[in-house]
Order: sequence, then structure tokens, then C-alpha cells
Amino acid sequence: MNGPGAAIVAVGDELLDGELADRNSVWLAEHLTALGRRVEQVRLVADDEELIARVLGELCREHPLVITTGGLGPTLDDVTRHAASRASARELVVDPAVLTALEAAHRERGLPMPASNERQALFPRGAQVLPNPVGTAPGFAVGVGSAWLFALPGPPLEMRAVFEGAVAPRLASLPGGGAQRHRRRLHLFGVSESEFADRAGEWMRRDARPRMGVLAHAGILTVKVEAPAGDDGERLVEARLSDLRSRFGSRVFGADGADLATVVGEALIAAARPVAVAESCTGGLVARKLVAVPGISAVFREGFVTYADEAKTARLGVAPDLLREHGAVSAPVAEAMARGAAERAGARLAVATTGIAGPGGGSPAKPVGLVWFAVARDGAVRAQRRTFPPRGRRVVQEWAALTALDLLRSALEQGRDA
Amino acid sequence: MNGPGAAIVAVGDELLDGELADRNSVWLAEHLTALGRRVEQVRLVADDEELIARVLGELCREHPLVITTGGLGPTLDDVTRHAASRASARELVVDPAVLTALEAAHRERGLPMPASNERQALFPRGAQVLPNPVGTAPGFAVGVGSAWLFALPGPPLEMRAVFEGAVAPRLASLPGGGAQRHRRRLHLFGVSESEFADRAGEWMRRDARPRMGVLAHAGILTVKVEAPAGDDGERLVEARLSDLRSRFGSRVFGADGADLATVVGEALIAAARPVAVAESCTGGLVARKLVAVPGISAVFREGFVTYADEAKTARLGVAPDLLREHGAVSAPVAEAMARGAAERAGARLAVATTGIAGPGGGSPAKPVGLVWFAVARDGAVRAQRRTFPPRGRRVVQEWAALTALDLLRSALEQGRDA
Repeated sequence: MNGPGAAIVAVGDELLDGELADRNSVWLAEHLTALGRRVEQVRLVADDEELIARVLGELCREHPLVITTGGLGPTLDDVTRHAASRASARELVVDPAVLTALEAAHRERGLPMPASNERQALFPRGAQVLPNPVGTAPGFAVGVGSAWLFALPGPPLEMRAVFEGAVAPRLASLPGGGAQRHRRRLHLFGVSESEFADRAGEWMRRDARPRMGVLAHAGILTVKVEAPAGDDGERLVEARLSDLRSRFGSRVFGADGADLATVVGEALIAAARPVAVAESCTGGLVARKLVAVPGISAVFREGFVTYADEAKTARLGVAPDLLREHGAVSAPVAEAMARGAAERAGARLAVATTGIAGPGGGSPAKPVGLVWFAVARDGAVRAQRRTFPPRGRRVVQEWAALTALDLLRSALEQGRDA
Repeated sequence: MNGPGAAIVAVGDELLDGELADRNSVWLAEHLTALGRRVEQVRLVADDEELIARVLGELCREHPLVITTGGLGPTLDDVTRHAASRASARELVVDPAVLTALEAAHRERGLPMPASNERQALFPRGAQVLPNPVGTAPGFAVGVGSAWLFALPGPPLEMRAVFEGAVAPRLASLPGGGAQRHRRRLHLFGVSESEFADRAGEWMRRDARPRMGVLAHAGILTVKVEAPAGDDGERLVEARLSDLRSRFGSRVFGADGADLATVVGEALIAAARPVAVAESCTGGLVARKLVAVPGISAVFREGFVTYADEAKTARLGVAPDLLREHGAVSAPVAEAMARGAAERAGARLAVATTGIAGPGGGSPAKPVGLVWFAVARDGAVRAQRRTFPPRGRRVVQEWAALTALDLLRSALEQGRDA
């Protein structure tokens, strides 16, 4: 235990009937832990005012810090504010500033404000309003006995924004914080969990310092390294990060909050390298991932989603003979797609995907999960194949799209060295 | 409430420090709910014997059924069995059959059994062993006061196997099962949560029968309607579904497990209607959603991700004058994109998106979140604008892509009526 602990309460019927997984608590736990607040329990409770009030009362007696997520919406089944009012024995009062802002937000969008939204301007008397920069429901902080209760909205984007903007800064000035943890993450592409475990060996022991953990998803391996904060912990963690970088070299694509699409997109922007994408089995997912990166318009020329063979010919100039002879899922077709995309979009770099995402369309020679990729760079083109585990169409598509991005990344790195 | 409820306890330090999301509880909640066991609370607790024992004692007084996951491994921090022993006041005793099986499993793999594994053969006296067909740690069931406590292993595959093989069959014969629930879902597009609340009014009360709940995400509103199973409950739920369908008309796009892309994709396939997509601000996301639908290759011709103005001209024939005069984010350009996509791809139906996803690029006249859409259908084309809340680039893109799909859906419905 490092200092008095916190409790999290996730509110919502949908969390208790198997409809929705509670993603907020794990995010909050991670961020609270980093801030030196150990989470001692998490409770998921139904939209039941009396139950929530009872749980909040209990937890506020046991923990100096209690955070709720959810139940702040405009509908009658959103009762967290009422429960907090009961637990804190403070009546609900309208916050005129919040009410005005709610009305203004609706006016801006040309909509009258439904009467039900007025609930969202109610707060326990004396509560501090926690601004919500990305939604209509602000959170609030209120004292309950000797504890602080923070109520946050349920939609994850809003919850995170309110926590980062209004909770984290307040926690720094509240008593009871323990030692912070120094925690870093490294992201690798194309290294499996067991390959990593083999090469990391003793580093993975539970009692090792620094402590490490891994998480694998669709070709991406995220390695967490952490130790209690302080000079020694920081040094241990950073040294391990250096070790990992030198052991895994170019397989490491980023650290901490980085994601592959953003890393690749920003590298393209930094290199001022115009890029195009030609997709068959990924159906627009590679383009979509790049276009999600702010500022990409400076380099992203065009995406060709040539799903039908005729589109591959009409749009990318893939010869019908090639398609007949080798089939759409083949090295020559992938190469012709990448070359065609680069030429027609006037881009010096292009990537192409063509494969069998399933569930149908597989054969012994070309099973579901087989994908051919090609990268065209400054006129040269090279194809590569991968076979992904056939864990469903979406998984194959996701894994293939990330692989295409990783191939762009490698091409950029080679281009830089050349 | 339909009969006495259940509680779930997920055990493990890693669930409380942000390392691992608890996926077991949502799975269990769904399966328990389907079996007529309403889950009333879920608790995540650390690997702390005293704390777990206290929580189990509390919950077994409040609920006739308590299920734990995790903490049954061989290491010293796996303490669920010890906590269950304390809560049930039954000492731990070795089960000779389990011990023999553990030793045999190690022999088979050519390994001596570490002494620590003997822990896994310990059970509260009188407990029923729940076989684990896919791992070394069996679960167990034990009476605690008038409640039944089921302890399951933490790894999700093992937890599911033990539940399905040994818990679900026992639940059928245990008293206290409520009536199974009759539950339906209806999905609406383009109705906000507060608009729904206003029009649904008293239906949303927590004590209403049938009971309703809503979940909103990027323009999609999911309405859940449920009641205890049986003739009366079924009738109530189905009647409410009819009411909702007539009240919200064509805003309802599907029921139960349906998702918008699948509904639209399958409608396109059923209508044998060739379709094309032209995307600027959504950058491939509309195509990606359609291409995720199995069998879509029968109708999906092609996607044009014309992010740069030159691509809009070269690929879709958008006149440079139009772009200069109105800007890329405008009704005339959206219309020209949709028309160009339909013509060039040889499709009778096409949808186009062009907008400002942000974070940059907004202006007072054309703010971040503004998106123009156009649908071309059998030669006719019509543009529409929407302004989405500026909650980040990805949210605007997701919302816009779903809106484009919804416009395809409307066009198909109108086509059917015509």
C-alpha cells in the first residue's frame, strides 16, 4: 500500500447485464495509480438511487477518495447526482452558469433544449463543478464526511477529459497521495508475446525491478515498465527502456501514448512524403487510419478502395491478364496495385493490400488470413506475404491494416538511411 | 428485480492498477442474466485474503449467489480459496483426486510438480470441485450461510469453460433463480438521447414495466426493453417495441444484435444494388464499414478516398471551378462527388462525404464538425448538411461515416417505396 487508497464506482445497468464492458475503471485505475493513489476497490452498480447512495456512503467512510463514472445524463435513469446528494446530505440546486451554458450549446446547434436536460445543471449544494470540454454533462466534486467524492460522466471521452482537466489537478492539492509510480510503455510491431517472453527472460519475473508486463493485440505488443518514482526508479525504468530498444531495434515503433497510425502519419508529414494507398481486403481501413491523423492532408493524396477486380484494372491499371493468371490475392497483383496507386496519385510512396479476410473465399492454397502486401517507393516495388490467424474478418482486416502501416514505416526508415 | 440477484467478485491486483481490464465480469453478467440471475453488483478486489473474506461474507448475506473469478493459481498471492475458507468457516482440506490429477499433469509434461501447486488441491471442507477442462486450477462451489459461492479461475478461457461445464448446469437446480428475462433491443439513428427522453417520457422511469434503458454513441441510440419472461412480459416488451417503431418510424434501423453497417450492407446485397463511396473527411471509414460486412463483394464496387482537391477532380470529375467557388466543403462539391463516384464505378447508388473533421481547418462560416453529404441514386443527387459536436477528429469522422450509411439506408427505403 502506498498511501490511503481510492475507490471507483461505475454506475449503469448496462454494466451489470453484460451489455457493456466497464472500460472507464481500468483507465482511471491506471491514471490514479500513476498519481500515487492506489485503487483498493472498484464497484459496478445499477442505476438505483438508493443503492448508489448507500455504496457511496460506505465507501466515503472507508476511503478518502471516491470517484464515480456514469449516471450524469439527462434521462430519468441517470441518478448519480441524486445519490451523491443523499450520501452528502446536500440538496440538489441548479447551477445557473451550467444551465445557461447548456441552453447556449443547444441554441448553437439550432435545437431547443429538451426539458430533461435541465437535470444536468443540478449539483449538490456547495459542490465544485468540473467542466466537461467535450460533452454536455459536467462532473462535480463534493465533500462527503472527510472524503472527497468526484462524479464523472460515463462516456469514456468525456470521463477522460474531465479527469485530466479538473480531477488530476485537484488531486495534487488533496492530502493522502502516496508515492507516484514511474511508468513507461514501449510499443513493438511484429513480435509475438512468446517470442518476447523468450527474449526478455528474467526481466518478466513478478518480483523484478523494474516490473514489466506485456499486452498483445493484432500484431502490436505493448511492454509496460514501471518502478516507484524517485531517482532510482526513474533510472531503472529508463535503463530498461534503452535495453529494450537496443534488443528489439526497429521493431519498436513508439513509446507511451503513441499509436502506430499516428507515428506513421507524423513521420510522413515530417518527411513531406506524399503517400497513396490501394486497398482490397482492408477496404479503406488503411486510409481511414492515416486520415485520422491531424494534419495528414499535407501528404495524404488519395486512397483507392478497389474491391472489385474491374476497379483494380480501371483505377490502378492492374492488367486483366495478371488477375486471371495469378488471382487477385497474389504478389504480382499487389505490386501492380501499389505501382498504380503511386503513379496515378502522384505519390512517391504507396502501399497495397490484397487478401482473404473471410469468412468465405478461402482455399487450401489461399486460406482465410492470407494477405499480400506491396510497397512502391520511388519507382521500386516489393511484395510480401503474411498469414494472419483466422480469428474473424474484422481481426484479419485490422491486423492487415496495421501491417500495411508498419510497412510504410519501414519504407520511410530505409528511405531515411539511404 | 426478478428474483434474488447475484454478485460477482473479480479478484486480482492487476485489475486495480490499470494493468488489465476485467473482461470476465461482463461475460458472466451476460450469461447469468440470460439464465434468469440478475447481477446486482460487481466488485473488483485486490489479492488480499482478509479483504476478500470480508467482501464474500457481506455478499453471501445479501445475495443467494456469489461468483468469484481469479485468485486460484498456485502462487502465494492467490488467496481466493483461503478467503472462501474463512467466509464459509470451513477449513481447507486436500482433495486427493485433484492432487493426483495435478501430479499426473506435471508428469505428462515431464516436469516435477512445484510444491506451490499443491495449493490448487485445497478446498473448503465439503466443497464441490468444479472441473477445469482447459487448465490446472479447478473451481469449487461451497455453501456460505444460505448462499452458494462459486469460485472460478481467472484466465477467461478457463473461467468460461468451468462456468459452462459446471456452474450453469448446477444453477438450473439451485433455488432462487428468477424468471428468465425477455429482452429486446431497438437501434435508432439520428435521435439524440434527450430527444428520446422527451418523447419517451414516463416510459423511462426505473419502475416502469417493461423497463427501458438507452445507450447513445455517435448518432446511434440503442433502446433496451425488458421484462420478466412469461406470456405477460413477452407481450409487454413486444407491445412497447411496436409503440417505439411507430413513434420513431424510419429512425429505427434494426433490432437486437443488428449494427448499422451490417443492416445497410445486407440491404444492399438483398437489393443487388451496386454501390460506390466517395470520401473526403471520413477518409475511407464508410468503405471500411461496408467492407467489414461478409458477402459485400457482390455489390460494393469501389471506394474513392479523394482527400486532396486534385484527387476529387482527377478521380471523380469535380470541376476545379466548383472547388474554387464553393470550397471543398459545400453542397455542390458533395453532389459532384456522389455523381462522379456513381458514374465512374458503374453504381446506381453512391454516397459522398466532405467536411471539416478538425482539429484545424475550421472557420466561423465552416466550423469544425460541419459535413456535407450527398447521395446519388439512379441519376438524381441530393445534398444534406450536418454539424456534429466538435468532440475530436475521430468522433466527427465516426459520426459522419455512420450518417453516410444511414443516408444509404434511407435511399434504399425510398427506392423500395418508389
